[in-house]
Amino acid sequence: MPERLRIGLIGYGYWGPNLARNFHQLPDAELVACADADPARLAEITRLYPSIKQTASDARELIENPTLDGVVIATPARSHFPLVSQALSAGKHVLVEKPLALNSEDARTLIDIARTHNRVLMVGHTFEYNPAVWKIKELLDKGELGDLFYIYSNRVNLGRVQTDINALWSIAPHDVSIMLALLNTMPLSVSAHGATYLHPGVEDVVFALLQFPQNIVGHIHASWLDPSKARLMTLVGSEKMVVYDDVDPEAKLKIYDKGVYKRGDAFGEFQLRVRSGDLYIPKIDLTEPLKYECAHFVECMRDNKTPRTDGENGLRVVRVLEAAQQSLKQNGAPIALQENT
Amino acid sequence: MPERLRIGLIGYGYWGPNLARNFHQLPDAELVACADADPARLAEITRLYPSIKQTASDARELIENPTLDGVVIATPARSHFPLVSQALSAGKHVLVEKPLALNSEDARTLIDIARTHNRVLMVGHTFEYNPAVWKIKELLDKGELGDLFYIYSNRVNLGRVQTDINALWSIAPHDVSIMLALLNTMPLSVSAHGATYLHPGVEDVVFALLQFPQNIVGHIHASWLDPSKARLMTLVGSEKMVVYDDVDPEAKLKIYDKGVYKRGDAFGEFQLRVRSGDLYIPKIDLTEPLKYECAHFVECMRDNKTPRTDGENGLRVVRVLEAAQQSLKQNGAPIALQENT
Amino acid sequence: MPERLRIGLIGYGYWGPNLARNFHQLPDAELVACADADPARLAEITRLYPSIKQTASDARELIENPTLDGVVIATPARSHFPLVSQALSAGKHVLVEKPLALNSEDARTLIDIARTHNRVLMVGHTFEYNPAVWKIKELLDKGELGDLFYIYSNRVNLGRVQTDINALWSIAPHDVSIMLALLNTMPLSVSAHGATYLHPGVEDVVFALLQFPQNIVGHIHASWLDPSKARLMTLVGSEKMVVYDDVDPEAKLKIYDKGVYKRGDAFGEFQLRVRSGDLYIPKIDLTEPLKYECAHFVECMRDNKTPRTDGENGLRVVRVLEAAQQSLKQNGAPIALQENT
Amino acid sequence: MPERLRIGLIGYGYWGPNLARNFHQLPDAELVACADADPARLAEITRLYPSIKQTASDARELIENPTLDGVVIATPARSHFPLVSQALSAGKHVLVEKPLALNSEDARTLIDIARTHNRVLMVGHTFEYNPAVWKIKELLDKGELGDLFYIYSNRVNLGRVQTDINALWSIAPHDVSIMLALLNTMPLSVSAHGATYLHPGVEDVVFALLQFPQNIVGHIHASWLDPSKARLMTLVGSEKMVVYDDVDPEAKLKIYDKGVYKRGDAFGEFQLRVRSGDLYIPKIDLTEPLKYECAHFVECMRDNKTPRTDGENGLRVVRVLEAAQQSLKQNGAPIALQENT
Repeated sequence: MPERLRIGLIGYGYWGPNLARNFHQLPDAELVACADADPARLAEITRLYPSIKQTASDARELIENPTLDGVVIATPARSHFPLVSQALSAGKHVLVEKPLALNSEDARTLIDIARTHNRVLMVGHTFEYNPAVWKIKELLDKGELGDLFYIYSNRVNLGRVQTDINALWSIAPHDVSIMLALLNTMPLSVSAHGATYLHPGVEDVVFALLQFPQNIVGHIHASWLDPSKARLMTLVGSEKMVVYDDVDPEAKLKIYDKGVYKRGDAFGEFQLRVRSGDLYIPKIDLTEPLKYECAHFVECMRDNKTPRTDGENGLRVVRVLEAAQQSLKQNGAPIALQENT
Repeated sequence: MPERLRIGLIGYGYWGPNLARNFHQLPDAELVACADADPARLAEITRLYPSIKQTASDARELIENPTLDGVVIATPARSHFPLVSQALSAGKHVLVEKPLALNSEDARTLIDIARTHNRVLMVGHTFEYNPAVWKIKELLDKGELGDLFYIYSNRVNLGRVQTDINALWSIAPHDVSIMLALLNTMPLSVSAHGATYLHPGVEDVVFALLQFPQNIVGHIHASWLDPSKARLMTLVGSEKMVVYDDVDPEAKLKIYDKGVYKRGDAFGEFQLRVRSGDLYIPKIDLTEPLKYECAHFVECMRDNKTPRTDGENGLRVVRVLEAAQQSLKQNGAPIALQENT
Repeated sequence: MPERLRIGLIGYGYWGPNLARNFHQLPDAELVACADADPARLAEITRLYPSIKQTASDARELIENPTLDGVVIATPARSHFPLVSQALSAGKHVLVEKPLALNSEDARTLIDIARTHNRVLMVGHTFEYNPAVWKIKELLDKGELGDLFYIYSNRVNLGRVQTDINALWSIAPHDVSIMLALLNTMPLSVSAHGATYLHPGVEDVVFALLQFPQNIVGHIHASWLDPSKARLMTLVGSEKMVVYDDVDPEAKLKIYDKGVYKRGDAFGEFQLRVRSGDLYIPKIDLTEPLKYECAHFVECMRDNKTPRTDGENGLRVVRVLEAAQQSLKQNGAPIALQENT
Repeated sequence: MPERLRIGLIGYGYWGPNLARNFHQLPDAELVACADADPARLAEITRLYPSIKQTASDARELIENPTLDGVVIATPARSHFPLVSQALSAGKHVLVEKPLALNSEDARTLIDIARTHNRVLMVGHTFEYNPAVWKIKELLDKGELGDLFYIYSNRVNLGRVQTDINALWSIAPHDVSIMLALLNTMPLSVSAHGATYLHPGVEDVVFALLQFPQNIVGHIHASWLDPSKARLMTLVGSEKMVVYDDVDPEAKLKIYDKGVYKRGDAFGEFQLRVRSGDLYIPKIDLTEPLKYECAHFVECMRDNKTPRTDGENGLRVVRVLEAAQQSLKQNGAPIALQENT
């Protein structure tokens, strides 16, 4: 293998520039090719990154370039399956933006192709590379929150209105991937409600409820129709509670020493009392998570490692989204998920 | 009628002190009696308000006092029906805390009794006396938000954990009463999900979705298990968006000049573009809403008026809660509401 | 002495209602008299607190009432000296609002009168009864901030524009009393600048700089001409830093584990490096400080104790303000304070 | 002149990367050379911007390169004078970081050299390219604030501790440049106080008061020893008040409809009453001001224009800082500034 791994980028639209910027700054990778249907975008990336030697309007040209080690795919979701399968089949390692695919069958197929060709398949669930999420995971694993009761997430904004996929598939993959990573388990069932305003058949607003084992509930509110930007997740435990505000650089994590306890009285009755103590805001590494993600992809390619967010991880997220989508169509009916299918 | 109307208070627990303080400050009412099962509470209110001449451990004593014009009931929800019906039957005007009753049949019975005895029956939906809510109503009625898409409400806190009624009946009456007042219509159907952690059979957390006519959705998140206090409601319209934060005295209402518009292109296709303009924070009258509520009760008693939050209003809220409760038990199945039953 | 000490209140204007409310709620005191020049105010207090048996338009009537144990004076600052001296001379214990007097000579005279008549003389420096200030004092005394470098205070608002005393004498007594309490020492010198806009000869805005021993600086910005309300004090130490925001109930104290350290290099040179760690927000008792203040006054009367904010304490604050006023007139020239005069 | 102007950058330390990034993105300029004493920095900039063809450890090499049109100087303040004078003398257009020089005599010399060689001399007072500052200027020029009373600025942070220049020369140039731009006049006099903790002879904290004509006061608090980052400026006028928080992307400018008015009474007396109305947050162009600044430099070079922040502008800021420095040494004595010297 060459000293610096050679990377091609497919899609230089909304997210592509962030990927380009990060790969550009990695010492052991080199961004050398880009495919995008829009010539203006190709001109732009070439101007900014003269390391780019090949541009193409058709992704296939890039995929067939034998000198590339890996490709990074940041295209509309519906193209993930064909592009990833082509790239893997052509012997490229692949980092693909979330969601891995638009249904679990496609996701499973991609996992199989990656295995057959012995290539890295990694999904860009960027929050799993976020030090704030790592810190929450650490707190949960140490039991600092006591029994975890529930998690709710508010991921809303005004912007990135899409017409091909709804807010569930566009926004909620983040919440699902974080919750699965934190809880280390799949939900038993999923219910979802949505509302459609801007484009027929495409929900702008989705509320989803994930029922996890041990009575843990996860609730997601995802929308691209909101006056304010929020990336807010709250975890309520019996001993402590955590608010994770990804938008607040000064206080990404607030750890509240709060809870409710039972207090017996002389008559054998009890009362529920609130306990409210200090608030602790740990210092969080503010490195851009995408930097860790890109470096991890390069590391997995180079050292033949399984990524933290591999195809199986991507499949789990797709399965939850798929169940939520089914519930959306059934007016919120809970859809069960079998753990091992 | 006497110059100052004579008021008795039943229940001097959590909310009673706020009612006492407000009635005490009204020029045309006099707080003269209090009933509470706890002698210490009776001693306390007598010390603070020497105008109180009668105290009783049994509410019936107070209800039967012929010199009282009205009674104010701030007791646990399950006692609302018997106390209100007794008080109305005894010829008292009644202000009762929300919810009016625990089912719609009881609520209807109370309306009938009030009508029979020609007494004022008013429910303490305090947010309908909140100038911020009036301002939102004014904006909606003028069409300033364009088409209203959806409303979501986050009413959470750590505290007031109850064991006899769940978070739906304890907290969500506020959200329901606000939404009904703003939209001036009942929802077509209601779905609700909950989770129970502290006390068997009592949901600590509830998510409810109200499907209103014209594709308007209302979503409620109510919980007494949360690290932070929020009384936050967001309204998303096609032309403007409003965030109502009742906890923020400086900026209770934020009116965003934001929206999404369709833009056609040369090929007959269109794109959805975001429009983001100024933010406007109108000055809101910060008078305590409970002061307006108490004054309104006195005014209705004195002038024989129908309260803004009369029995019918209280019934509508109870009907929505009842449907939500039914949905809770059916794992989120949507429960239809017939407008005229 | 009687079981409940009998208190008279002189002045029921801006601050008087807060004092009345707190004394009213104390179990071992009774608010029995009030003097105010405005009959409407007397009618109001009597209506709210029927325990008031005596009202007077002239404070002297109240001062001469032999059944009163103590008087609380909440009148304009220029009347503090005559009223306090009369009340002490008449054998009353006195709690007077800040400032104790308008010059140090008067303040010393009041201390003498109190000593001669063996009465309690207490000044209403209410922030010295604030649990947040106690917590800061505890941190400083334990050395948790390392070497204290400087303190700055921003006490601004739109409101309470005065025409008889300037922002220095009206607002800054709080900052001065807090800084003296925290540092346990007088400043060596004081400089002050001001600006006058609304009323001739009365500064609306004052900036004062207190030079304390050990190179510690205190800076005060006091104004009643500001769009926002701030009661904000920042303490910068070599090991930790504290922000005290009295307006924020959720995070009154923020304790930052931050600092700057010197790092030597191989050439005997050094660099200054920033250290930035966790943020810690301790739970602070949210009891109204005025409640502690009023209870302390009653306790000192009853048990013949010296108040935390006695006449000497009030004198020290007046001396600092007096020096600042002198500097104001001399265009910011530093005015030295001798410790023992 | 060539199509794309050829730019050399001197100094790739703290601020240099921001300049490089912005010049790199300009269509009509090309970043082709960089000088820095540290070879690692030169390697880094070359890796990121392959357009860089010349690197040098000695700035003189770059200055003497005849193919460069302009140089951008982002070195320690003490080197500004020699580097700028050399570059201008060598026929280069110059953009130099603030402050232009460390004393007014040097600043005047640089203006003369630029005039002699007919070159652009521009100072990087970046806030004068900030759309929020432009908006405030517009409000002031339209008289929307009524009579401007005073401005105060809080520019603090933990970081960038310097040992060669103090907080006045390092941080306050921004505040001075903004105030001069907004008021369009020099102050009559300046007072300043400082405190030194970390490095002998270098003030870490500075408070400066600028007395402008028409009784307008400007106050500056600059420090690199603070737990929080603030870039906050408040303008108080008789009709409106503005808070400019450069750190808040959602609400950079808050325009308060607040004021104080005199109200006469029947006796010919008057009272001062507070007026408090709506709050308005205009949408502000969030383009990075440095982008406008860099584009402006290129435009001035190309079209032979006088920059908005030319040498005269830089001189005015230096004169204010110089007076403040003199006041610092004289313990806060006010230092007069003659308008035309």
